[in-house]
Amino acid sequence: MALIWYRWLSRSFQSQSVSRALSTLKGDSSQQIIKSPPLLSLDLPDIWTSNSMHYDPLDIDKYSNESRARVIDGKLMAEKVTTGIAGEVIRMQEAIGMVPGLAVILVGQRKDSETYVRNKRKACEESGINFWLTKLPGTCTEHEIHEALSSYNENPSVHGILVQLPLPRHLDEEKILNALSLEKDVDGFHPLNMGNLAMTGREPLFIPCTPKGCVELLLRSDVEIMGKKAVVIGRSNIVGLPVSLLLQRHHATVSTVHALSKNPDQVTRQADIVITAAGVPNLVRGTWLKLGAVVIDVGTYPVKDPDSRCGYRLIGDVCYEEAVKVASAITPVPGGVGPMTIAMLLANTLESAKRAYSFS
Amino acid sequence: MALIWYRWLSRSFQSQSVSRALSTLKGDSSQQIIKSPPLLSLDLPDIWTSNSMHYDPLDIDKYSNESRARVIDGKLMAEKVTTGIAGEVIRMQEAIGMVPGLAVILVGQRKDSETYVRNKRKACEESGINFWLTKLPGTCTEHEIHEALSSYNENPSVHGILVQLPLPRHLDEEKILNALSLEKDVDGFHPLNMGNLAMTGREPLFIPCTPKGCVELLLRSDVEIMGKKAVVIGRSNIVGLPVSLLLQRHHATVSTVHALSKNPDQVTRQADIVITAAGVPNLVRGTWLKLGAVVIDVGTYPVKDPDSRCGYRLIGDVCYEEAVKVASAITPVPGGVGPMTIAMLLANTLESAKRAYSFS
Repeated sequence: MALIWYRWLSRSFQSQSVSRALSTLKGDSSQQIIKSPPLLSLDLPDIWTSNSMHYDPLDIDKYSNESRARVIDGKLMAEKVTTGIAGEVIRMQEAIGMVPGLAVILVGQRKDSETYVRNKRKACEESGINFWLTKLPGTCTEHEIHEALSSYNENPSVHGILVQLPLPRHLDEEKILNALSLEKDVDGFHPLNMGNLAMTGREPLFIPCTPKGCVELLLRSDVEIMGKKAVVIGRSNIVGLPVSLLLQRHHATVSTVHALSKNPDQVTRQADIVITAAGVPNLVRGTWLKLGAVVIDVGTYPVKDPDSRCGYRLIGDVCYEEAVKVASAITPVPGGVGPMTIAMLLANTLESAKRAYSFS
Repeated sequence: MALIWYRWLSRSFQSQSVSRALSTLKGDSSQQIIKSPPLLSLDLPDIWTSNSMHYDPLDIDKYSNESRARVIDGKLMAEKVTTGIAGEVIRMQEAIGMVPGLAVILVGQRKDSETYVRNKRKACEESGINFWLTKLPGTCTEHEIHEALSSYNENPSVHGILVQLPLPRHLDEEKILNALSLEKDVDGFHPLNMGNLAMTGREPLFIPCTPKGCVELLLRSDVEIMGKKAVVIGRSNIVGLPVSLLLQRHHATVSTVHALSKNPDQVTRQADIVITAAGVPNLVRGTWLKLGAVVIDVGTYPVKDPDSRCGYRLIGDVCYEEAVKVASAITPVPGGVGPMTIAMLLANTLESAKRAYSFS
């Protein structure tokens, strides 16, 4: 159902914005000295069309009907990380009488955002990290957010600040994120941080939590990254792009596939490691994968399920039932990337506090 | 000859630094809460070994012996750009009585750096852009460079500053580049700029000259980038990385190949567009290319040539005689990327001056 709605949205959206953007791109540029356009003028919405989602059900038959893939238990791995962090928090408190602190700004009443924030609060409580929450109505002004931000920026007990995304449309996300103190940007979304993540010889202050979590899952599953072919599906600023950059720093041969890629299934089928953050439920079918690939699924979407206690269940970018027959290891949804992302948020907050107090 | 020496250097260098770095990477990390290491600890010298450079001379026989590739005349295209810029400089001078200005800091006496700087000066003179040069001895202190930099940073007639790289080893390149005013960083090497180049929805102040030149050559050759498979060979901060980021902003499906990639030839053979900045003469053989690929060669290396008037000639990363039989279009070395890089430097300097004077 979600998929059908999505396809309709894709088609109608694509016929408007994309064609508008394309006509701008193809505009008469014979008068320009430089053909290269401003990059902003190139930006297009990353909408996966049904073409990208083709599926040949026969192909899958060549694989066994039994599950082959080892399940990468993100929940268990994240618990181990969280336990380790709790130990460090105690050690810090005993040594210098301080603990790390995380502040979250939540705007509006999106159900999913509220759930994420609740999980973050719970994880902080479990690991002994102080937690502050500023809830603002969906109709709030930029000024109100800036006030909350600047108070957290100045508070020495706060070592990490995050603005829960997405923000309501009337707010300028870029401007708000730019106002966040770099030293407390535990999400690592600032362009300066992104540049340092990308560039050899540089160290970002924080590696964004989800990409860091993906790599942590690979490392904890003893998956070799160096020299391997990795395909990242999706190129969003918050997941796809930093995942690609991070895998490259780990010496993978990285290809990034997006909604405008031709034959994304063929490219993906070359990969030893697939990390998918396309934002499209069930995009990656079994036929997209090389036999033995390792699959990390960042997507999470609720779909109606009358059999479930709460009336819905979560699915990812990957068609799990098919992928599990082809991959050698795979993260489940839920219980894969999600918990590890939160563990990495705690890790970044701890790291920031250690830096603030010169504690090692 | 250059290649033999290079291979020897690779082997001996690799046996030391790489194995040291690898042993650090593989060190006992069972005590760590987070397995993900600091990124700086992952950095390895990108050394192409002879394994990467294998060559099967039989493969090439299947292609015709006649050249097929259209030559992308970078010199001619750059002249057109430079003429356009000269016109804009005149228009600016007539309208507001100002012209753009570029300042270069050259440290030491590297022959290649001196040649590059001479070419930049000549291009500035041809297009009416003011040019300043500070030459410092190879033994100079960081303080002396910072003094020169800060004087150019403050001079309102200077709109672009570049420090000719590489610097002598005793100087801290990162620190020096960080001291350069962002608004005058026409090379675009600052990490903030790199982050804005990478991130959708952001516009860097300057796109680094060589990457911008590569894309300009593609656009002027009517090569479609969107949706195409592009392989970038090399991932240096000054070429490979920003080329990959820029091609992704242009919606190519980008794969980045580097010295630690397994089977770089196989990956490259998938590409519709190959941009190579590996720093290894003749690395890319004809067998690395798909029939009809478009090839942009950023490499430039002098090799001894008794038949040449000056005793040497320049070659690139690509084995031109072979590639020309397989590719559909290719840049020559010299006369391809080099002139266009300089033209993009002029373009960035003009852009910076326009921004400084709010002139459009």
